[in-house]
Amino acid sequence: MGLREVLIPQDRVFFDLFEELANIVVEAADLLVRFTGAGLNPVACCPQMKDLEHAGDLVTHRIYHHLNRTFITPLEPEEISRLASVLDDVLDCVEGSVQKMRVYGVEESDDVMRQLAKLIQLSTVELQGAIQGLRELKDAGSVSARVIEINRLENLADDVLGHAFMDLFKTNDPIRILKYKDIYEELERATDRCETVANMISDIVIRHT
Amino acid sequence: MGLREVLIPQDRVFFDLFEELANIVVEAADLLVRFTGAGLNPVACCPQMKDLEHAGDLVTHRIYHHLNRTFITPLEPEEISRLASVLDDVLDCVEGSVQKMRVYGVEESDDVMRQLAKLIQLSTVELQGAIQGLRELKDAGSVSARVIEINRLENLADDVLGHAFMDLFKTNDPIRILKYKDIYEELERATDRCETVANMISDIVIRHT
Amino acid sequence: MGLREVLIPQDRVFFDLFEELANIVVEAADLLVRFTGAGLNPVACCPQMKDLEHAGDLVTHRIYHHLNRTFITPLEPEEISRLASVLDDVLDCVEGSVQKMRVYGVEESDDVMRQLAKLIQLSTVELQGAIQGLRELKDAGSVSARVIEINRLENLADDVLGHAFMDLFKTNDPIRILKYKDIYEELERATDRCETVANMISDIVIRHT
Repeated sequence: MGLREVLIPQDRVFFDLFEELANIVVEAADLLVRFTGAGLNPVACCPQMKDLEHAGDLVTHRIYHHLNRTFITPLEPEEISRLASVLDDVLDCVEGSVQKMRVYGVEESDDVMRQLAKLIQLSTVELQGAIQGLRELKDAGSVSARVIEINRLENLADDVLGHAFMDLFKTNDPIRILKYKDIYEELERATDRCETVANMISDIVIRHT
Repeated sequence: MGLREVLIPQDRVFFDLFEELANIVVEAADLLVRFTGAGLNPVACCPQMKDLEHAGDLVTHRIYHHLNRTFITPLEPEEISRLASVLDDVLDCVEGSVQKMRVYGVEESDDVMRQLAKLIQLSTVELQGAIQGLRELKDAGSVSARVIEINRLENLADDVLGHAFMDLFKTNDPIRILKYKDIYEELERATDRCETVANMISDIVIRHT
Repeated sequence: MGLREVLIPQDRVFFDLFEELANIVVEAADLLVRFTGAGLNPVACCPQMKDLEHAGDLVTHRIYHHLNRTFITPLEPEEISRLASVLDDVLDCVEGSVQKMRVYGVEESDDVMRQLAKLIQLSTVELQGAIQGLRELKDAGSVSARVIEINRLENLADDVLGHAFMDLFKTNDPIRILKYKDIYEELERATDRCETVANMISDIVIRHT
């Protein structure tokens, strides 16, 4: 990496852009946690969430655009484009979950939403750290620890979802079940996508060390 | 590309096969638009749709088979096999949506189906153009414009789906909601898959220019 | 491969690990068939299924770990990590389906579950064979025959699902539909994932022969 860094420092811009995208993902998760917290209407964050999703799309497009104009990249071009795409997927799930609340007219969060939002937030912070770790590809150990933690959080989210379904079906209200099941699943999917990103970062570190 | 074209013109067959597959995808979307149009039973197109899906599978297998016997390919072997697979996914979603109508006994299309069918059709025509653009890998600009348009159409489909869900839940009829939600989502998924193909073509163009 | 085998026989460990993982997947499918068989409560196999899923995760992590420490691998590093990941997905779907039965309080299997379990079992045995075939990358014909068979089984599972949905909606019981639809779809997804693995093995064989 030494020679490459000296010759083409401008390629470091990819890491800047990934960190920028990760920051937006964390910001969206923070927003979700704040608005699913007691007392707020989660749907009220829709406009801000839409802005974050749009900001994420712009960064993703800048990554593609820069890739288009750069001959020597610090990672494989395909790694860069796929990583941008899956990071963007996390953002889409977070945004998608509040959109579903809006569409279904759910104006109050419940404990399940709060718990899942918290797990998403913790996962995105780990992702942010793992992405910062990409810049120095030597630190495989720290990235690996974060990947394991994200796996653990995803398993927790899975458990939360299982218990939530049990409670939900006890209501015996099919319309309510249809709505909440969809929202819970979208929230849980966000933790799945975090795991996908984590595994991809792990693969990248493996290939480059 | 010049030398390669002279030496191994037979490899152009991959582009012929991709165009053939894209034509089938467009044909399936046209069929969907025609049969979700006013007055026709959409389920009546199932046999023709099944034939198109089968024709698509055959082309996909010919792509794999040809890949198996060709040493020098115009794109990476993995790019070729993945592109064939995701293009086939679009066809599966289109066919899947009329299969769902059949299974659920939905014999009349509604406005949502018509709107989504139209968006699918527009997306597949853009895809067809992007695939023709693969042959001449220099024209990244035109491919990029099509990718942006497909993104726009996918966002529109997303909006249609949101409004459709709001209306659907107003019926308060859980069985109806279960059926139509499933069909609408499968239709919207077709536009998602078009976006996946578009992004993959965009990646290929980036890597080869 | 000859020279490589002499120089780095320790790399054969990847094939050992893949076979170990495939054996666990087959074991999970066998367990599913046994417990969806007449007279047993399928939920009763949850603890054993969880153990198998955990065993699968450990093998997957050993594959990643070994990849991390090996400079010359018999397949591309990315092929190895992705194959491990999709094989693990099959296991997750099988485990997920009995978890869903548990969550939904479904303590008796029906014919649909039995039929899908059988199709999953047949698919995993084909997968096991295809993975054994990876060791000798020359035998593309035999792998290809297994891929075609797995495709056929997946189509059968699709038909079973279609008929199951028709019967299920006849009950007109939305809660029951919600539960069983989810379980059936998870079972069918296991055959989809088998197809994904099969296609990936097929791609690997194409690239290495």
